[in-house]
Amino acid sequence: MKAPYLLFLGTETILGNAKTAAGLAYWRPELCLGQIKSAGGTVNLGLKDLSLEEAVEVGVKTLIIGIAPFGGGIDERWVPTIIQALSLGLDVAAGLHQRLNEHSVISQAAKKFNRDLNDVRQPKKIFTVGTGAKRAGKRLLTVGTDCAVGKKYTALAIEREMRSRGINADFRATGQTGIFIAGGGFSIDAVVSDFLSGAVETLSPNNTVDHWDIIEGQGSLYHPSYAAVTVGLIHGSQADKLVLCHDASREYIDDVDGYPIPELQECMNGYIAIAKLTNNKASFAGISVNTSHFSEVDAQQYLQKLAQQYSLPCCDPVRGGVAEIVDNLECEL
Amino acid sequence: MKAPYLLFLGTETILGNAKTAAGLAYWRPELCLGQIKSAGGTVNLGLKDLSLEEAVEVGVKTLIIGIAPFGGGIDERWVPTIIQALSLGLDVAAGLHQRLNEHSVISQAAKKFNRDLNDVRQPKKIFTVGTGAKRAGKRLLTVGTDCAVGKKYTALAIEREMRSRGINADFRATGQTGIFIAGGGFSIDAVVSDFLSGAVETLSPNNTVDHWDIIEGQGSLYHPSYAAVTVGLIHGSQADKLVLCHDASREYIDDVDGYPIPELQECMNGYIAIAKLTNNKASFAGISVNTSHFSEVDAQQYLQKLAQQYSLPCCDPVRGGVAEIVDNLECEL
Repeated sequence: MKAPYLLFLGTETILGNAKTAAGLAYWRPELCLGQIKSAGGTVNLGLKDLSLEEAVEVGVKTLIIGIAPFGGGIDERWVPTIIQALSLGLDVAAGLHQRLNEHSVISQAAKKFNRDLNDVRQPKKIFTVGTGAKRAGKRLLTVGTDCAVGKKYTALAIEREMRSRGINADFRATGQTGIFIAGGGFSIDAVVSDFLSGAVETLSPNNTVDHWDIIEGQGSLYHPSYAAVTVGLIHGSQADKLVLCHDASREYIDDVDGYPIPELQECMNGYIAIAKLTNNKASFAGISVNTSHFSEVDAQQYLQKLAQQYSLPCCDPVRGGVAEIVDNLECEL
Repeated sequence: MKAPYLLFLGTETILGNAKTAAGLAYWRPELCLGQIKSAGGTVNLGLKDLSLEEAVEVGVKTLIIGIAPFGGGIDERWVPTIIQALSLGLDVAAGLHQRLNEHSVISQAAKKFNRDLNDVRQPKKIFTVGTGAKRAGKRLLTVGTDCAVGKKYTALAIEREMRSRGINADFRATGQTGIFIAGGGFSIDAVVSDFLSGAVETLSPNNTVDHWDIIEGQGSLYHPSYAAVTVGLIHGSQADKLVLCHDASREYIDDVDGYPIPELQECMNGYIAIAKLTNNKASFAGISVNTSHFSEVDAQQYLQKLAQQYSLPCCDPVRGGVAEIVDNLECEL
């Protein structure tokens, strides 16, 4: 994906449906030169409103469809803006279920103007099976007691904290919003099963010994729908360090019936048992908790209690950042 | 796939390259009415040699490409036989890497004669994510200390033994040779990761309470390339009983470097830890060992020692069948 970007918010009126654009603007403000809406759209990310012509003038290279309305389809009301962007020399990228490349009018326009359409949900690489061979460099993987407990946010917060300390670190994306933020990576859950760990090996290749890959986790070992994806990520990443992500308000696993959230210690033991196959030194570097339903005082007490119980730095990355976890990593390695 | 079958052995001269046909003839002799070779082919499965016309006369419905030469391609010397089979009203099925449906001459002939081409390596179903919801009926899954340790053979032997005792049991195939034998199922390693456990839920649906699904395992929890596939199978199957398959002569995991075969007890503990997520009563029903490198006496001693050590029936399904494992299942349930 060629940076910098113009974020397309279409006709969207619900901020929650613009999570991809919001995540990108929050984590990569330097890459987001502006936003553009269609008539009727009301979502505002606080970026500069730019016309397509103005965007080209300030150097934008790609229009990013930053919205994912229910159903994941391409709204026909967006199409004129997309076509005009292509005609002005911009590439277009989206993480929608419906592919830009399979929309006949859009794909014809891209051919006509010789521009790239980037459907980030569909991996473009041909993968092979994993080898399990050791690679140089250090790797951290975020894992969860469940899905949607802050694995991406935590990984990005760790990358930001590490870079601010001059540590050589790269966030490695495994889902669509992460891919927009990183400008690379692939949706691991769209990879054919046989190639899961092999794909993750590719995502986090051999590197210099001082380099950290901070890999975005997916699913959970305790989610009956997605544990296989999580295991492929653990084995392929050969993680040296894991960070457990948890939502303090959640009692049951998301999207399924009757699966309680496991105890954190049981959960960490389970993750380590799996991780040891490809890295027998794997260990936890901290716990990252979403405490948004607690008051500030209650959150601090909760985190302190966890830290004592598990002898690990415990933090809410939104409230207070992840400095303690990075301290721990610097201290140990 | 419409039965019965004629097994096509092409120009093959190496029996090992006809494993799919040999497995089908061994496990489903009642479905295999004959074999047919091309000029130059020397492999003989002991079936009746039939011309295509004779096959049609005796009621054959499908010509099965029972060979998988190195590279997995379609040999042009086979094409005249395939075309003639289609013209005589037979369907054609293959488990090759190269698809029959993507071979232009073959696919045109199939259209012309209105016959089905069945590429069993590519799942045709659209899958959804797993639900983790409990299903009625009983399920057994074969798992392994490694790949290629007899998981398919053991599952088929258990199905055969159960059926011989009047137990309501179905083998569920998850790989290409198994699919030919079962006449159904799908290659689980070709399913997109997100849908792994969901696909296995589909493969082994709700059933009567006395019914056993005997599910063909794939990969191994201890194989760094394939453990994710194995986890999807365990969670999707919600196995009540597991059978551990092991090759007594193997010291290291196949196809990768530096991964020793785990201790059997550690291995069973690891499998149970994973299986308990979707079935907290999961337990092992026996151990199935390939002892082909031992003498008969040594094999018996080895199996007896294992049985004492783990308090489980231990057998070599090729030497002595799996009656003890089925005794154990009948006893417990």
